[in-house]
This record gives sequence, C-alpha cells and structure tokens, in this order.
Amino acid sequence: MYFKDIDKIAFDPSQVENPLTFKHYNANEVVAGKTMAEHLRFAACYWHNFCWDGADVFGQGTFGREWLKISDPMAQAKAKADAAFEFFSKLTIPYYCFHDVDVSPEGNSIKEYVDNFAQMVDVLEQKQAETGLKLLWGTANLFSNPRYAGGAATSPDPEIFNYGATQVFHAMNATKRLGGENYVLWGGREGYETLLNTDLRQEREQLGRFMQMVVEHKHKIGFKGTLLIEPKPQEPTKHQYDYDTATVYGFLKQYGIEKEFKMNIEANHATLAGHSFHHEIATAVSLGIFGSIDANRGDEQNGWDTDQFPTNVEELTLVMYEIIKAGGFTTGGLNFDCKLRRQSVDLQDLFIGHIGGMDHMAIALKKASKILENDFLAKKVAERYKNWNGQLGSSIMKGESSLEQLAQLALDNNISPAHKSGQQEMLENRLNQVLFS
Amino acid sequence: MYFKDIDKIAFDPSQVENPLTFKHYNANEVVAGKTMAEHLRFAACYWHNFCWDGADVFGQGTFGREWLKISDPMAQAKAKADAAFEFFSKLTIPYYCFHDVDVSPEGNSIKEYVDNFAQMVDVLEQKQAETGLKLLWGTANLFSNPRYAGGAATSPDPEIFNYGATQVFHAMNATKRLGGENYVLWGGREGYETLLNTDLRQEREQLGRFMQMVVEHKHKIGFKGTLLIEPKPQEPTKHQYDYDTATVYGFLKQYGIEKEFKMNIEANHATLAGHSFHHEIATAVSLGIFGSIDANRGDEQNGWDTDQFPTNVEELTLVMYEIIKAGGFTTGGLNFDCKLRRQSVDLQDLFIGHIGGMDHMAIALKKASKILENDFLAKKVAERYKNWNGQLGSSIMKGESSLEQLAQLALDNNISPAHKSGQQEMLENRLNQVLFS
Amino acid sequence: MYFKDIDKIAFDPSQVENPLTFKHYNANEVVAGKTMAEHLRFAACYWHNFCWDGADVFGQGTFGREWLKISDPMAQAKAKADAAFEFFSKLTIPYYCFHDVDVSPEGNSIKEYVDNFAQMVDVLEQKQAETGLKLLWGTANLFSNPRYAGGAATSPDPEIFNYGATQVFHAMNATKRLGGENYVLWGGREGYETLLNTDLRQEREQLGRFMQMVVEHKHKIGFKGTLLIEPKPQEPTKHQYDYDTATVYGFLKQYGIEKEFKMNIEANHATLAGHSFHHEIATAVSLGIFGSIDANRGDEQNGWDTDQFPTNVEELTLVMYEIIKAGGFTTGGLNFDCKLRRQSVDLQDLFIGHIGGMDHMAIALKKASKILENDFLAKKVAERYKNWNGQLGSSIMKGESSLEQLAQLALDNNISPAHKSGQQEMLENRLNQVLFS
Amino acid sequence: MYFKDIDKIAFDPSQVENPLTFKHYNANEVVAGKTMAEHLRFAACYWHNFCWDGADVFGQGTFGREWLKISDPMAQAKAKADAAFEFFSKLTIPYYCFHDVDVSPEGNSIKEYVDNFAQMVDVLEQKQAETGLKLLWGTANLFSNPRYAGGAATSPDPEIFNYGATQVFHAMNATKRLGGENYVLWGGREGYETLLNTDLRQEREQLGRFMQMVVEHKHKIGFKGTLLIEPKPQEPTKHQYDYDTATVYGFLKQYGIEKEFKMNIEANHATLAGHSFHHEIATAVSLGIFGSIDANRGDEQNGWDTDQFPTNVEELTLVMYEIIKAGGFTTGGLNFDCKLRRQSVDLQDLFIGHIGGMDHMAIALKKASKILENDFLAKKVAERYKNWNGQLGSSIMKGESSLEQLAQLALDNNISPAHKSGQQEMLENRLNQVLFS
Repeated sequence: MYFKDIDKIAFDPSQVENPLTFKHYNANEVVAGKTMAEHLRFAACYWHNFCWDGADVFGQGTFGREWLKISDPMAQAKAKADAAFEFFSKLTIPYYCFHDVDVSPEGNSIKEYVDNFAQMVDVLEQKQAETGLKLLWGTANLFSNPRYAGGAATSPDPEIFNYGATQVFHAMNATKRLGGENYVLWGGREGYETLLNTDLRQEREQLGRFMQMVVEHKHKIGFKGTLLIEPKPQEPTKHQYDYDTATVYGFLKQYGIEKEFKMNIEANHATLAGHSFHHEIATAVSLGIFGSIDANRGDEQNGWDTDQFPTNVEELTLVMYEIIKAGGFTTGGLNFDCKLRRQSVDLQDLFIGHIGGMDHMAIALKKASKILENDFLAKKVAERYKNWNGQLGSSIMKGESSLEQLAQLALDNNISPAHKSGQQEMLENRLNQVLFS
Repeated sequence: MYFKDIDKIAFDPSQVENPLTFKHYNANEVVAGKTMAEHLRFAACYWHNFCWDGADVFGQGTFGREWLKISDPMAQAKAKADAAFEFFSKLTIPYYCFHDVDVSPEGNSIKEYVDNFAQMVDVLEQKQAETGLKLLWGTANLFSNPRYAGGAATSPDPEIFNYGATQVFHAMNATKRLGGENYVLWGGREGYETLLNTDLRQEREQLGRFMQMVVEHKHKIGFKGTLLIEPKPQEPTKHQYDYDTATVYGFLKQYGIEKEFKMNIEANHATLAGHSFHHEIATAVSLGIFGSIDANRGDEQNGWDTDQFPTNVEELTLVMYEIIKAGGFTTGGLNFDCKLRRQSVDLQDLFIGHIGGMDHMAIALKKASKILENDFLAKKVAERYKNWNGQLGSSIMKGESSLEQLAQLALDNNISPAHKSGQQEMLENRLNQVLFS
Repeated sequence: MYFKDIDKIAFDPSQVENPLTFKHYNANEVVAGKTMAEHLRFAACYWHNFCWDGADVFGQGTFGREWLKISDPMAQAKAKADAAFEFFSKLTIPYYCFHDVDVSPEGNSIKEYVDNFAQMVDVLEQKQAETGLKLLWGTANLFSNPRYAGGAATSPDPEIFNYGATQVFHAMNATKRLGGENYVLWGGREGYETLLNTDLRQEREQLGRFMQMVVEHKHKIGFKGTLLIEPKPQEPTKHQYDYDTATVYGFLKQYGIEKEFKMNIEANHATLAGHSFHHEIATAVSLGIFGSIDANRGDEQNGWDTDQFPTNVEELTLVMYEIIKAGGFTTGGLNFDCKLRRQSVDLQDLFIGHIGGMDHMAIALKKASKILENDFLAKKVAERYKNWNGQLGSSIMKGESSLEQLAQLALDNNISPAHKSGQQEMLENRLNQVLFS
Repeated sequence: MYFKDIDKIAFDPSQVENPLTFKHYNANEVVAGKTMAEHLRFAACYWHNFCWDGADVFGQGTFGREWLKISDPMAQAKAKADAAFEFFSKLTIPYYCFHDVDVSPEGNSIKEYVDNFAQMVDVLEQKQAETGLKLLWGTANLFSNPRYAGGAATSPDPEIFNYGATQVFHAMNATKRLGGENYVLWGGREGYETLLNTDLRQEREQLGRFMQMVVEHKHKIGFKGTLLIEPKPQEPTKHQYDYDTATVYGFLKQYGIEKEFKMNIEANHATLAGHSFHHEIATAVSLGIFGSIDANRGDEQNGWDTDQFPTNVEELTLVMYEIIKAGGFTTGGLNFDCKLRRQSVDLQDLFIGHIGGMDHMAIALKKASKILENDFLAKKVAERYKNWNGQLGSSIMKGESSLEQLAQLALDNNISPAHKSGQQEMLENRLNQVLFS
C-alpha cells in the first residue's frame, strides 16, 4: 500500500475543511437523466501520476515517489501498477489511460519491449479484474525515446517509422484486449523544429499513410472502440501537424479518413493554439468529430503546457453544455491529463488535485443541466437565425440561387437590411445568473 | 497633382541619403532567369494609402490628405483615383488592388451603390489605359458597413447575405472587366464575437454555399483569373473562420472546392495565427494552394494587425525561396497591404514606405536566387529523407505494408534505428552566410 | 430623454428573464460591515458610452446614437451631458469619470478649448447638483488629437508638452471644482513606435518632470483627492512607459514622487502586460500604491484592448478579497472602462452591460466577504511563512546576518531543509467551494 | 580528448562549405578602434553544453555525452571540466561562465557540497592557468535542487534561505578567486506559482535583504567585479520577481542598491516579458544599469525559453549599436546561454552553434560600426528633440515652469503646435541599406 493514510474518497459536502471528500461529485446522483458517473466518465492517467517525479527543465524531481525508487525495471513497473490501481480505486474513478511505456519498460531491444509489454498487459488485465477499473483509452509513446527526436510517423528515417508502427500495433492490440473504449494518437514530435531541413509534403504523406494503416488495423482486429487524434499546436516541437481541430479535419479529409477518427481535445492544447477550450469543443461538435476530452487547464499568462487541474467552472460549464446538447459522450470521457504543481509534494496532493477536477466537472455538469432546463442560449440562437428557414434563406441554402439572381433580387427589392443586436452582454449576464444562483 | 514635389522613383543605389530612390529594386534586372518585375509582380493597395487618414482606435486622422477633404462623394472618389494613379505611376509599381467601396461611394441605397461603382469602374478603366497600370486583384468590402457587424456570408440574416452577394457579383464583374488577374475574398467579419449566440455549423454551411456561388459565377462569366481566400485568425472578430491556411484547406475540402481556390497569404495574419510567415507560405505550397501574398509585417510584441511595411529580409528571403522553388507566381503577386505609421505624416512617407518594401523584397529575391544557385537547403533535405526512396520507405508509401507486417519485420530484423542530427544550427549559419556575404 | 423606454434599474432577483434588473447588486445591503455601495463605489465612464459610436479599425459606427447626430459642437456636448446623466441616474450608479474632450469640444484654438471646457464644467456642475451624481475622477485626453501622435509629455516638441500641460492644468482645476475624488493620468501615447527615432532617457526625464509638475499643482490648488497613474503596456504605441505597476513604481522612485501617486489598475491592461488582473492588484497593494480600478476584461485569445464588461467572477472575487483585506477603497472606486461589443446596437445593451458589471462585482464582493469570514487563505499564508517569525528568520530580516555568518551556521548545524507542499490544488478547491456553494 | 576530430577553429571565410571555420569573427581584426575580441568579450557556458544531455519535458536525453556517463560524481565533474576546457580552447573563446553545481557535485550534505566545490575550484584554477581561459562570471544554482521548489531567497522557510546564502557565499568567493569579472544572480524560482499561498510583500522583503547581503559581502571580500541581476518574467515559475529591467530597477531603488547592480540581459527573457531584446538593452542603458548579455534567441511562435543560438543579425546589430554608443562593455560580455536543438546530436553541432553565434555577433559589430561612422540614427534623434535645447524646453527641464505658467503661456501665445513625421519607414530603410549593402 502506497497510500495507506488515505481511505476511499467519499461524497460528503458537509466536511468543508476536509480536502479528501467530494463536495459535488456524487457518482450515482442523477442529473439530466443519467448518473453523474455516466455523464462524466472520468479517467485518471498513468503518466503524470505514476511515471513523473516532479522534474522540470530547471530542476530535479521533488516528489520522491516510493514506486519509482525501485531499480529493477519490471519490478518498478509492477510497483507502479500497484500504486496506480490503489490510487484509482481509492479515488473511485472508473477509468484510466496509459501509454505503452508508462506501464512497461522499453528494454534494450524491440524484442524486450514486446515481451515486457505483454507481461505488463497481463498484470493490467488482472488489476482491472480485481478492481473493476476500466480502460478509457490506450496509446503508444512515440516521442520520449531519443530515436523519435525527429518524429515517428514523420521521421526522415523509415526504420523509425517502422519502430513506431510496431509500438502502435502492440498498443492497439493491448487496448483491445483490455477492453479499452478508445485508442488515442498524439503526435508528440510529429512536427518540425525548423523549416530549413523539413519537407512538409513528404512528412504529411507519411503521417497520412500511418493513420490509414491504423484504420486498417483497427478493422482487421475488430476493435470496436473509437480512434482519437489529439491536436496540439507546438511543444515539444516548434510546430506540430495536428495543430488544432480544424487543421486535423483538413488532414483527415485529405486522406479520406474523416469518418474514422474523432478528436480528443485537451484544454491546454486549445489555448496554446490560440483558441478557447470551448471553441475547440464546439468546432469538433459542429464538424461531427467530437470524441473525448483531456480535461486540464493552462496558465493564462504562461506559454507552455502547464497541465493544471481544471478549475474554471464557467468554461467547464459551457463545455459540458455543448457535450450534453450533442448527446453526451459515447465512447469518450473526461481524462485528467493533469499534473500536480512541482511544489505539491505530499502524497495526498495527488488525491486533492483529482478530487478538485472531479468536483469542478460535477458543478459544471449541474450548471449545464440547469441551462438546458430552459435553454436560453438555444432559444436566442434559434431566434437569431430564424430567417434562414424563410424563403430567401432556404433557397440560398438549397443551392437554388446564383450571385446574379441575388444581385437582381437585391436591386428589385431595393433591400436595405440592418444588423440586429447580438446581445452578447445579456447572454453573459444570464450565464452568470445560472452559475451564481 | 497631389505629389508635385516627387518625381518618378528611379533605381539609383548611389544616392545613399536620398530616401526617394530604389537601392535594390531594378525592374528590368534579370535574376534567376526573369526580370525582377516579372518575379515580384508588385502591387500597391487603395485602402491604406488613399482611404485612410491615419486614425486609430485612440485618435483622429493625422495625415490630412487633400483628396479626402472633398465633401462630394463622387468628386472625392475621382480625386482619390487621381491621387492613386499619380502615386502608382510615380512609384513605378505595375499593379494595384482595391475593394469596391475603396474606389466608389456606397451611396444611400443598393441602386446608388451599383451606379456609383459602375461609374468608377469606367474611371479606373480609363486610368489604367492612360498609365499602363494593371489590376492584380479586386475584392468587395463586406465588413465596414454597419449591416455587416455580424458577418456577411455568415450573417444570421439572409438579406445581409444577399447584400453581400450583390457586392461580390459587381466586384467580380468589375475585376473581370478591368483585366484583374485574381479575385480575393477576405472574410473580415466572418467569424464570431461569442459562441453564446453563434451556430457554428449553420454559419459554416452559409460560408460554404457562398464560396460555391462565387465559383459558379466565375465560370459563368468566364473569369480566367484565380480565386483567392485570405486567411486571418481574429480581429476584428474574436475568431475568424478562415483562421489559417490549414483551416481554409479543410473548409475547401468539405465543400468540394479545393481545386477552385488558392491562398492569399498575409504576413501579419500568419503571425497573429501563431505561425511564421514562412510557415504559411510553405504550408500552402505543400498543399498545392499557394496563390498570392499580402506583403507586410506585424510587430513581434503587439497582438494586433499593425500592417507595417516588410523589413525582415531574412524571412522574406525564405519566402521568395519557397515561391521561386515552386515555380514562381502565376497570377499572384506581392501586394503591399501596408499602412504607414500614424506618425509618418509627410506625403513622401507614402513613397518611402513602398520603396523600402520593394527594395527589401528585391534583396530577398537576390538572396533567394543566390541560395538556389547551389541549393544547400534542398540538398540537405534530399539527403535527410533519402531512405524513403529505399525499399522499406517505398513499400510503406505505396500502401503495401500493414502495422502487423511492420511489427513482424521489426522483430525479425531486431531493428534499432537511431536519430541523425537535424543540423539546424549548421543550416542557420549557412543561411546567414548567404544573407551577409 | 434618450432612454425613454427604460426606468430606473431596481434590485429584483425574482425577475430572472428581465435583463434590466439587478440580481445581486443591492446598494444598501450590508456586507462585511459596509453597504455594497460603500464598498464598490461604482462609476460609469463618459468616453465609451457617450462619445463612441461603435466604430472600429475595420468599420464604421453601428450605434447611431441620437446625441452624436447633432452637428453644432457645443449643442452636441450638452446633448451628450443630458444623455449621460439620464443614463447614470437610471442606472443608479453613484459616480462618473471623464476626459476633458469627452465633455467639451476641442475647438479651433487653445482659447476655444479653454472657453468650451469652462462652459461645460458649469453644465456638469449643475447636472451633478440636480442628480446627486459625483465625480470619481477627471482626466485630460492627451492622445487623440493629431498633435499628440508622438506623445504629449514625451513629445519631441516642447510646445506639444506645453499644450498637454495646459489641458492637465484645466482638467485638474475642473476636477477639483466638481468635487472629483481622484485625478487620473493615462499616458495614451507616452511610449514609442520604434526605438530608431527615440531617446528613452530624454523622454523619461520629460515624463518625470511632467509628473512632478502635476504634484506641485495639486498642492498649490489644495486638491485633496488622489493622483492616479494608469499603467498600460502597449496600444496604441508599440511600447508604453507606464507598462505595469512594477514599472511605474520604479519610475516614481526615480523622480521621488512614490508617495504622491497611486495606481489606477485596469484589468485588460494587466493582461496585455502578461499579468493577471489579480497580480497587478496584489502587487500594488504590496507596494502600498493601490488606488482605484478600471473594471473590465480582455479577451483571453485576443491581443488588444477589448474593454469588455467584467464577467469572470472568480478573478473579481480575488480582486475584491485583496482590496477588502487591505482596508477597502479610500478615494478610489470601480470605474467601468468598458465598451459594448460593436454588435450590441440596442440602447438597452448599454444598461445591460453595466448591470452585468455591477452584479458580477456584487457577487465577487459577497464571495470575498465569505472567504474573509474564516480566512483559509490568510491562515495558509500565515502558517506557511511562520518560521520567518522565529529566531533565524527574524535575525535575517533585521539585517543582523551576513552571508559569511549564515554559511558558517549552515555548516555548523549541517542544515538540510526540505521543501513543504505549497498545497496549491487544495487552495484552488477551497476557493471554488466558496464560489459554488 | 572528447573532441578529437575537431581542431582549433580558425577564421577562414574562404571555406564556404566548411561549418567549422569562422566566416566573420576574426578575433584580432580592429573595428571601431578595438579588436573584435575586445569588443565582444565572448563566453561559453557550462550548463547547456556540459551538464545537459538533450532531455526535455517530453523526452530523454539524446546527446549521449561521454563525460556524463561516468558514474562517480567527482570523476564526472573532472571529466566535465576536461571536456569543457578542451571545447573552450578549440573554440578560441576567451571566457566561460558556470553555476556552482555545474562544476561540482552537490553531495549528500552541505559539508560535502563545500568540500566538493573547493576541490573543483582548484581544478578550474589550474585549467584556467593551462589554457588562458578567463571567467566572465560565476553564479550559484538556487533552483534545481528540490529544496528550492518554493524559491531560495523568497522561500517560506528561512533555513532554505540560509542554504541559498551559503551557496552564494561560496560561489562569490570562488568567483573572486578565479578572477571572475562579474557575479550573476538569476532568481530561477524567486517568484510564485499561485498568489493564493503567497505573501508578495514578505517575499520581496526577503529578496531585498538577500541582495543587500550580497552587496555587503562583495565589499567585505573586496571583489572588484560587477554584481549582475538577470531578469526573467516567468518559467519555471508562473511569475518571477525579476520580471524585466524596469521591474528590477524599481526593486533596486526600493532597497537602495541601484548603484550596486547592473543588468545581465538575456534575449529570450526579454521576448518572454513582451519586449524586444533591443528594448531591454536600450532601457538598461538609459537607466545607467546595463552590464552584460546572455546572447541567445527565443522562437517567435513559442512561449517558452528555447535558448537558441542568436541568428537575427538585424536585432543584434541594434544591440551592438546601443552598446558601443554607450561606451562598450566594461566588465560584461556576450555569454552564449544557448542550447543546441535536441535533434542536433553530433558533437560538432556544439561547435557549429557557437561558431554561428560568434559570427552573427561579429557581423552585427561590423554593421553597428558602419552605422556609427556616419550615425544617421543619432542625427535623426538629435534633430527630432532639438527644441528641448531651446528656451521653452530648457526652462521646463530645469524645473522653472509650473502647469499654471505653461497654461498661461499657451493662451498668451495661442500655441498650435503640430506633430512632425517620425520617419520610421525612412529609418528602417536606412538600416536595411547598411545591413544589406
């Protein structure tokens, strides 16, 4: 037991000063027709919680996690799994997520990699059975090993592409075996450091082919989950190919695979790309490619991926509003791709960060549900665009009008349309009324 | 004559202290097989130079342009044309660009708009004949009039869409009649201020249909020029649909019009979108949708569109390198979408800004040509990706490999590929050797 | 009457769908020992509400305000005052703020400026008497007129400095006469566009002398209010001298006037400077120079001054927490330096924007008061730094230790201190518990 | 020998394709009255080059440096010194810089730290004697060890302050002994992660006292070099107290030590603070606190400290112009606080990066010298402000005028001053004429 002083986290809003209870997340409470657990589908991640020891570019690890002090790689991997599943269970979170090399040592050869991973998938399978935990998604880490310094699928070296393909093969198979509901691709170093040495077209073709192979493999093995791409604009590379949702959409269309992938949207990646989190969610929904969420936040004044626990209830409410309105998650969920601040060195901080994230999402769910009861946003939107259901609007949208006809019509009718108030301030006030009522 | 103290600008590098001569731009000098004029295809714009009087959000106009003091709208429009063509001719710039309402008063009704514009197109036609000036591109302003406060093609009101369609109809026809080589669409307010009142899917559909109508009209009237879309991420709206090249590409694919449009890339829009100017050019080239350029620059520390004259020769060199390597401009060119600093109130500053822009692009052309003589960049790229021409690489790119086969291959061969240096620093040094030799 | 369909705004939380009532701001409700009105000291501004017609850099005014359609300048100024005071009264806001040229036409000479302003100060004095409105602060606009294109106090031309000094002389006198509680200096164009033509030291000396003259004049006329400087980092200029609170503090120290000025902190200026609003408030408080607030917000994705109405209750709560903890406002207050979105063209939007701003600040006040009841933040801080009250800490802070002594002490005691958790996540959760309880 | 395939780098512009020769830096060539070596005073750093193995937040080290593979700490430290001095010598760079823990293992106790450092200072002293290398500056690393997670001088724990004081004591003494010409303080974690747990006033007082102790110790030991503070706005912390030059100036004034410190300005820190590199240099010069430079660059599209080798000759030229105009470096110099791209894994890349940095600074020096020959910038500035030497200007600056007098004077003379063109575009063109002639 790594967290021996900590019991299973309970819902108990009365314990105001106890940081180790949920104040809002009550798994079985029904909101808008489903339980909170069904709506929110929370997952915790392996990497930040169990593989990272608090190091940053300017300093060494601060956490001193016991399970990372074990020197034998496989023994460490098993200790990590013990710690992880103890944590997941005590947190009462239903799902988890991992990269291949989070759970299993890379070894000194590709054979060792394959063997280690196979062993650890057995361990994970058993842990899942023991605890009831489920796998929200699996993925392969194609960015940490030095071989991937110049990218994996977009590497200038086809053997490195091959190595990456091998990892994805095994990670997809493992995800299927562990009942994972999605498989994620995040192109950590699929981008460039400088255009001076980069062939954009070549790298894009490589990435396109790689993704097609992933689709083919999915169908071959009969994986029923969803394939997810996670956009990020930069960091670690100067510029990454999966910049944002709109960019990935164009890429998917180019390679004819837009029906095969959905988006795993991370809040902090959205803001690094110059968008709000809400924007990325709404864009993905509007394009029919919304899938899942990496719930976290960036710092509004810092230009790198801080991966903080989500705290901004206003934004989270709008995100939950979009998701519920679009029918809710199917295979996706809310994964906390969050890391503790490097100063938060107590073991219980790991719980407190997640409890906050879960509580803030639960508040957001309740507030979104409140909006939906009498949806002033949807009413305003419907009223604002209503003339597009009229004769002129319909005829335009059906493709029945030409520029010439419209120009003639305008002249014939001497049209002089005027802008109507967008009432942004009114809507902002209404939203805060719901948030703070 | 509005610029009576200024003569035609000549190429004369010897007059170091005279700001009114070209030091590098020598129109007929041959570089890399074509004259500078043929390579660079410079244009000056109507709006910043002849319609704007130096006002900004915090203050009134400072320029006191004589032609803007004329109160009768049509008389002012004609005076503006006089000033513009005098300026263009003295600058010896071969092309110009305009919006419909730059050259012609909007009037008090759509009929007046149409009549005024028809008259002014006659004036422009005559001016072109007299001076030999050519039209690089025309466009319609669907963002300044209050009716477009909530967008034009993406307006919630189909009558406003209709008004915009009418303007584009007339502006396309005028562009064709004036021999324009391209027609540009910049969606100044096609975006949103707040998601709270916005239907992203509806607005996208409207914009898609609008662009299709533009394509249909082009073919109907037999316009032989190129249709160009100009991406911009934000400002004046919070978020604009034509965010950047990659976003527009996805949009074009969605509406099946990706072969009908090319990109008009503006340097300052690139940087507002979080990209380098070079990135946007290289991306458009790699996607086969590069068209034309709005040459300017933003301020690296300011977050709005400063539209300064281009001065960064290093970046301009890389841009010219990409363009020449891709075969050079076809119908596109280098339009100076630049405005003077509000403090630059002398009439001659208008010339000096453009002379600088033209000289800096000319240096960039010469430096790019120097790189291409013995293309160390292309050589490095070819060498870096050479294994993609080998057996493994070819087989992957031809679609002959599956993840499973590659995973097996990796294991069989016990592959252990290592990253090779990207030599970024070496390439940066070589580039500066060319720039400062 | 310009707002004839709108009655005095009342506190009535029951009218959920009526945007024209306060839901939280109840002027006479007592919170933390004072009425809301006493705590919040709200002011509305003249410039955005009554001088601006909705124009931006890309388009014309959209509002069509009746009072701006009057062509005679003095008649327009009086109409503006009618509109303004009708609005202030109906809004039930206790204070207002203005620039000299907001309320009075500049005229065609300095004499006309002085005469017009004198007349309009009479008008304002009478309006104040009639309505009970009070002046939070006055200021002079030294940035809109073309003469100030290169700065006022920092102009390269001493006559322009002189013109600015004249305006400040009259604006300070007017502020005193109207019972203004503060006088503000915002250096709209006191900065540079390019270092190439700028003498930083000279301009700093000019600004230093200008501010000293302001102090001297204050004492000479016996103005009892507070002098406030409003920092802003850029826009309209590339770089402004009053960049942020820390920069202004250094400037004040350099010219020996740090006891004579306090800060007027604007939320949107804070974020443009790369700081949170909370940071700027906390910094000013910690330096003993906090004065007043321009309450608004920027857009998190846009790089210019959007001056939106404040909506972020979380941040506003922290701001109110800092202010109350520091003793509350003295002469300062919360001025809404906010402008409507250009799309919000209805007259009632002007009310709705302010109602929202006032309600959101009122929520923030109530939440801040809630925190202060049992101040978990202060307790955590006290506990975190408690050892600075111990022997070692005291001796260091009293200046009794040298590096050498400390180095010896460390060795003698073989010290090995360890970092303790900063518990950021716990505090964030506690804060949200208060906000969403 | 770690770099056995690499000879001493020579000046040889003829070897265009050989990346291992200088093309512009010719140490003994005289420019503007001094040799290049005397002007530029280049230094290389220990940390990025010899302590870092290419790891970043997303991946492991890629460089595989031989000297870092040695497991015994002191043996590794000596091997590092061998590698470092071999490199410095072959690069022909005259100076180096280090942190205490770059050169010496921290050990398991403060005593071990002191002993190890003493031994390694002996090693460095001998290396300097053997090679002729000199120490530009020394410093202490108070940010990497976990104990400093919450700051050193600004730690909530006075024992941690004490530990930091001990390191600075030894590092200052070592710097003096090694003939270092400056001592640098960079407050890596002197800032905050969240205001929720931070007492800004307390931490500022601690930092003030710490810096006073540094000053006292300097005088006590008779260190003749310069004390330098290096501003940085954020990263690793959310917000750092030494934000930028202006902020540090205010801090120095507050604690009465503004004559005791000068600035060590890093290009990438300037841009992270929202300033140009040129701005920070010019600001420091104008305040009389310019000291030294950490020459590097950030990526214009990335929001973290990329520490790339400087390549932007335009900006570097302006920086060298400011420095030479201000009299040149005294004890300061140009330290390359630069790291290779993680992809640049060849040993020779370490040379190539530095060769580029030195060559680009040499070009900048030559270009700056060219400007100074006939200083069109200084002439423009002198002419622009010339009226401040006239009667009105002088009287204002001497403090002889009051607002009232100036207001009367303005009225008496009916002044109507007009803005004159700032000629920014002309100056930008002239600058590029020099850069590309």
